[in-house]
Amino acid sequence: MKILVLGGDGFCGWPSALHLSERGHDVVIVDNLSRRKIDVELEVESLTPIQPISTRLNAWSRVSGKSIGFVNLCVGKEYQELLDLIASERPAAIVHFAEQRAAPYSMKSARHKRYTVDNNLNATNDVLSAIVDSGLDIHLIHLGTMGVYGYGTAGMKIPEGYLNIKVATSEGLQDQEILYPANPGSIYHMTKTQDQLFFHFYNKNDKVRITDLHQGIVWGTQTAETKRDESLINRFDYDGDYGTVLNRFLMQAAIDFPLTVHGTGGQTRAFIHIQDTVRCIQLAVENPPQAGEKVLIMNQMTETHRVRDLAKMIADITGAEVVNLSNPRNEADENDLHVEHDTFLSLGLKPITLETGLMEEVTDIARRYADRCDRSKVPALSYWNAERLAAKNRAE
Amino acid sequence: MKILVLGGDGFCGWPSALHLSERGHDVVIVDNLSRRKIDVELEVESLTPIQPISTRLNAWSRVSGKSIGFVNLCVGKEYQELLDLIASERPAAIVHFAEQRAAPYSMKSARHKRYTVDNNLNATNDVLSAIVDSGLDIHLIHLGTMGVYGYGTAGMKIPEGYLNIKVATSEGLQDQEILYPANPGSIYHMTKTQDQLFFHFYNKNDKVRITDLHQGIVWGTQTAETKRDESLINRFDYDGDYGTVLNRFLMQAAIDFPLTVHGTGGQTRAFIHIQDTVRCIQLAVENPPQAGEKVLIMNQMTETHRVRDLAKMIADITGAEVVNLSNPRNEADENDLHVEHDTFLSLGLKPITLETGLMEEVTDIARRYADRCDRSKVPALSYWNAERLAAKNRAE
Repeated sequence: MKILVLGGDGFCGWPSALHLSERGHDVVIVDNLSRRKIDVELEVESLTPIQPISTRLNAWSRVSGKSIGFVNLCVGKEYQELLDLIASERPAAIVHFAEQRAAPYSMKSARHKRYTVDNNLNATNDVLSAIVDSGLDIHLIHLGTMGVYGYGTAGMKIPEGYLNIKVATSEGLQDQEILYPANPGSIYHMTKTQDQLFFHFYNKNDKVRITDLHQGIVWGTQTAETKRDESLINRFDYDGDYGTVLNRFLMQAAIDFPLTVHGTGGQTRAFIHIQDTVRCIQLAVENPPQAGEKVLIMNQMTETHRVRDLAKMIADITGAEVVNLSNPRNEADENDLHVEHDTFLSLGLKPITLETGLMEEVTDIARRYADRCDRSKVPALSYWNAERLAAKNRAE
Repeated sequence: MKILVLGGDGFCGWPSALHLSERGHDVVIVDNLSRRKIDVELEVESLTPIQPISTRLNAWSRVSGKSIGFVNLCVGKEYQELLDLIASERPAAIVHFAEQRAAPYSMKSARHKRYTVDNNLNATNDVLSAIVDSGLDIHLIHLGTMGVYGYGTAGMKIPEGYLNIKVATSEGLQDQEILYPANPGSIYHMTKTQDQLFFHFYNKNDKVRITDLHQGIVWGTQTAETKRDESLINRFDYDGDYGTVLNRFLMQAAIDFPLTVHGTGGQTRAFIHIQDTVRCIQLAVENPPQAGEKVLIMNQMTETHRVRDLAKMIADITGAEVVNLSNPRNEADENDLHVEHDTFLSLGLKPITLETGLMEEVTDIARRYADRCDRSKVPALSYWNAERLAAKNRAE
């Protein structure tokens, strides 16, 4: 099927585009290369030597015999171009990764808050409006985040998107299904909760078929497809803004730094391997909701861990030390997290666990490219609010 | 107290600014005159002869001896200018009306959807970010809408912002308070539900003190202050986009048109007189939430009526006929609406009822200025989706 992958040059977008192409779909990447430009701004580079998009696409064509299209277009700003592209390509599905996706980056300053809000919300609205405008029946698949849920209620398993509640009425308690109440922890996460309201409205008003995937923290770097040629290699971010907690631990271990745990490290997070991410995207694309169905929401994660347990796992493999620092984020030090994620399992997903996959990250990525690391970029330097910044300053 | 009124040249903003000034507050209006420019786009004018902002402000100074400042600034785009203004004026409160506020306008075309989303969401985020950036403790008062609630649940009274629910957990049913689940009926209403998430986040993360006012449909034109000079007169919109259902009925009666009811007219709506609106704004400004308190949400409405009952009320006064047309909006034909609105009553609001105030609108506004009416602008011409447009085309 013909598929547009918006943000198809990014960390999740690129391997997803390759995987969909490998499965025989006809893929066109739409990307304004904003993620590479943010690297320029932050004066940091992917640890892995990612190649320019044209080199990537040529390499894919060489090793697979398949071609992927590319259009440099700013989703959220260049509306007519997006609409024209949809009208001419007539895709059956659009996968939407075209959002700024780092919580710390979204909290750095007013400029970064404003960019994240402006970029993410206009991008999502433009895609939906263009689908309606085109008059075509296009399935939209969007990358959401587990962060839309906040951190749940004690004793409760976070459901897949919808919550059954009881409401007091004049006729007694009534059952009702609602979108899970949002409690975002950063500007970035907030935009994803606002995206849900776009989806709810366009689905209700225009019957757009939509799948929203609430993803956990992605770990791992390579997929079956990105391994096929050195030029296809995927991003590995280790900096304080874009590096996930796991990547920063891996990097710290590789360059003989202690692993820095924020607060007590009792924060529980949901995880998924990048190989499972691309498989989930494929499953979502190939299993669309029916016309007239509500927004399909699936939790795209496979296991949960506490941050301090992750640190211990990596310390055990690498011999690194663990140290605790004050937390720049405005969040609880300890939280439980129980998440329903049966839908993808029922569609056939066979998860890769941290226990089995972590060693490859240590040897094939972190140690192999350690000489490309800029050590000054590892610490997290975005503070969530005035209090968290003051706490850090007092500690110094 | 020093107060910035964003959107202070508009239908609610202008009389609110005057009322706050009359109460002795030091008011600065911030407005990019977008509402007047939309009149240019729609080729329509306020039925009442509103004066340019400088004429208005001079007249106010002449009749009241008080001066109101004015800054032409686009909230949501000109961030540094907004921040500089806040830093120099150091307001105790900011009243935020700076949003595109017509549901039909927001549904006219992709361009109008995109403008409403871009304008409203960036405006709200910029105000909040600038308050945080300024380091000042500023109370933000925002005009929301009853439309954030959707149309409620049978047998249930819509609460003021928050809903108490019971959630099933491993320890049995647990009580929880959540933001009332959003179910917006247009792109415009959707942006107000997304605004709520901005407020929730900035209140939680940065302790910004916020009051969100979910207003019903405003009727009436003049307030005690706008009546003091012909040059102070407030807007009266009667066109298919900005004219409320009540204003369009008044206008149709004045020009001997039948009153056009969409569908069965069984839609129940909440109403408030503009004089009560400005009083509510004053009460909200003068009764801020405390530092650390959650977002204060109040329902700003005083009575509910079915659309067909409104039509009958005006037909009875004026002798006009009533006709039913197909509904351009994607909404239920019949709905009940019960709304809690005790907070403003407890703060001392004494509502003006339709029954007592409607005659003045008929004689002092609709009939008096009927010769300024462009009859071609009365019908509603925005269709909510492809189906509603097709239904209208079939009927013709």
